[in-house]
Amino acid sequence: MKEESTRARTPSYAALTGPSGPRGRASIRRTNLGVVLRILRDAGPRSRAQIAVDTGLPKPTVTTLVAELVSLGLVREGPAQREGSVGRPGTLVHIDGGHICGIGVEISTSYVHVLALTPSGDQVFEHRAAVAVADVGAEAVLDLTAREIRACHAALARDGIRPIGLTLAVPGVIDVATGTVTYAPAIGWHDVAVAEGLRARLPEPVPRIAVDNDAKLAALAEYALVQGTDIRDMVCITGERGIGAGIISDGRLLRGATGFAGEVGHMPLDPRRRPCVCGRSGCWEVMVGLDAILSLAADTGDRIHDTSAELESRLGELSRRAEAGDARTREALDRVAEDLGLGLALLADVLNPRVVVLGGYFTHIGDLIVERVREVLRTRVMAPDAGGCEVRLSTLGFAAAARGGTFLALEAVHQDPGGV
Amino acid sequence: MKEESTRARTPSYAALTGPSGPRGRASIRRTNLGVVLRILRDAGPRSRAQIAVDTGLPKPTVTTLVAELVSLGLVREGPAQREGSVGRPGTLVHIDGGHICGIGVEISTSYVHVLALTPSGDQVFEHRAAVAVADVGAEAVLDLTAREIRACHAALARDGIRPIGLTLAVPGVIDVATGTVTYAPAIGWHDVAVAEGLRARLPEPVPRIAVDNDAKLAALAEYALVQGTDIRDMVCITGERGIGAGIISDGRLLRGATGFAGEVGHMPLDPRRRPCVCGRSGCWEVMVGLDAILSLAADTGDRIHDTSAELESRLGELSRRAEAGDARTREALDRVAEDLGLGLALLADVLNPRVVVLGGYFTHIGDLIVERVREVLRTRVMAPDAGGCEVRLSTLGFAAAARGGTFLALEAVHQDPGGV
Repeated sequence: MKEESTRARTPSYAALTGPSGPRGRASIRRTNLGVVLRILRDAGPRSRAQIAVDTGLPKPTVTTLVAELVSLGLVREGPAQREGSVGRPGTLVHIDGGHICGIGVEISTSYVHVLALTPSGDQVFEHRAAVAVADVGAEAVLDLTAREIRACHAALARDGIRPIGLTLAVPGVIDVATGTVTYAPAIGWHDVAVAEGLRARLPEPVPRIAVDNDAKLAALAEYALVQGTDIRDMVCITGERGIGAGIISDGRLLRGATGFAGEVGHMPLDPRRRPCVCGRSGCWEVMVGLDAILSLAADTGDRIHDTSAELESRLGELSRRAEAGDARTREALDRVAEDLGLGLALLADVLNPRVVVLGGYFTHIGDLIVERVREVLRTRVMAPDAGGCEVRLSTLGFAAAARGGTFLALEAVHQDPGGV
Repeated sequence: MKEESTRARTPSYAALTGPSGPRGRASIRRTNLGVVLRILRDAGPRSRAQIAVDTGLPKPTVTTLVAELVSLGLVREGPAQREGSVGRPGTLVHIDGGHICGIGVEISTSYVHVLALTPSGDQVFEHRAAVAVADVGAEAVLDLTAREIRACHAALARDGIRPIGLTLAVPGVIDVATGTVTYAPAIGWHDVAVAEGLRARLPEPVPRIAVDNDAKLAALAEYALVQGTDIRDMVCITGERGIGAGIISDGRLLRGATGFAGEVGHMPLDPRRRPCVCGRSGCWEVMVGLDAILSLAADTGDRIHDTSAELESRLGELSRRAEAGDARTREALDRVAEDLGLGLALLADVLNPRVVVLGGYFTHIGDLIVERVREVLRTRVMAPDAGGCEVRLSTLGFAAAARGGTFLALEAVHQDPGGV
């Protein structure tokens, strides 16, 4: 058990997302490439001799593996930076990977966001295209997404950077094995073969394509930020038209039996049982989703409802009104804070997280609601002091899901560097 | 990851409940005793040569370890039962442990239940004492519990069986580290030092005492029944005055950051926001707890409310009335089935379990409600087909928590046989 908990504390998305990578004797060399690469990622630059100690592999084997990783462009060898020390500096092996990147693409209700990061976290591409996803239909959104990805590929090619994988984040229940969006009421999708549809739209060579739930990917990105702390239980709430949760339990992403865990937006919490886009009624997202706060805060026709404007600027307007003391805006924020606290209290009763992170649109109105949310949590959770649960605002906001997507895309190289 | 998933599939309660057992060089021998014992438990009787292969330990070491386990009364050596084979049969090492047992004690709202099982699962003691726990107060309940445990010890001593540990199950939030019941509104307890209180009431030598949440222990017992299947995500609902859940996620018991996970009885689901014993309002257990169904089914004064009678017989009366077509009873059952399905749908949205097990009082009225519960689940869960979630009735019923307690008590011997 000791080994397991140590492993989970390193930022390994494999530990979070479950088993992957090659098995069996034939792939031992490829597996060992991954072992060396992960040591360098998780524990920092080190000498080949140190790698041999860390991995238990013979020194000549380490030399061969490092040479192969260098030829793959994943690591480089360079002098140690030992300030003030005398004598010839030793040679250290560093993660390189400036020539590769992972691409994360979020298809949300109102935009397609493309983000590319290198293994060392450098952002090498970003673009966000506004689109009313539910209105234009899945085919048109896949067309747009493919165009955005081609633009990203072109920019990367100019910079000599090779994308090694691509993960799409979608707000709904996903069949991860086939890359199909089973059901996404917030965008009106039903059985959309996203991975297949994109592969057909992209020129060869198409990088590996994975599709996953937006809240789960956002949770991977948020959890990476607390790596190294003692936080092992975390709930990340995405806030857009739909509400979802990415749940980290004891250091692992909770997927559930068929990958559908975290659909918290449809918890039946509304005492007024108002209808939801999912066809049911009384869902939590009817109370705390983006549409809820906008309708509470202003009548149709008001410019905060104008979907052709950037969501951030509309939320900025909302904040300005609240700060100016507008009674209706303040009441809307209080109502949402109250109902958000109620649902979070429920999740704290069920999951007992150490931290709840509020992401998505909540990030943009967070300062105006978070105190009230915390108060509701304290009074409503069964365990004393909300079971030690702390409410934080995301620092990633709407970028979290795409960012988590890049992490998952890059994980493939850490699991099987030779296969990239 | 492969090793981890294999380990979790074996009925190891350590894997379910987190790290335990000795660490460091000095305890390698003790650790190895546990390794050998767990191999025998999980994989069945085998030769010393086979144990050496399975564990990677040298044969002479295995011989020494087996001899020590024999002297501790935990294993025995005997001839292999090879029917029809010729020649001298080999000697196999078997789990013995008929001379030791684990004790599980459940303190529920209406009884104290003591159960003792040997490592091979033989029941060597059972007794249940009816008591209105909330009415008589914690001190009197601990007095009664200590008397019940002494009676158990006396019976075991007559049979030459040694209890190696004792686990108490209590319906509330528990500080597992100190064995204190932090908060248990269903029985009116607040900061009751149960482990300490019992140690003071029992004659030396007192076995190891642990205290844990009743629903979590019940889940361990229920999960043991599905070991070897592909079920890794399970929610076990306890039904008494209070409602709790033991959650198994990806083969592990979900405890949360401070051990308070699974307090599902206090999810705010009641649109009528009726008051709960916890001091809040609108809690799920107000809708589906034992008191709810009894008040819906009959006025005060009716014999199903008579707490001096066995709960099983009162629930039996309820079932007879429903089967005889009594309208009020049937409506009460439908109401509870509906509200139970609603809460389970919520848990399925959050956790996506493969199986929900209905335990406690639900076991006794299960046949009358389970079809309706399944129907609500199918229509209410966000994922198609309730995310593959199946609703089953517990076969352990009110005995589940005490049974889980015996498993946890016995786990100590599997982790550290020399320490027993």
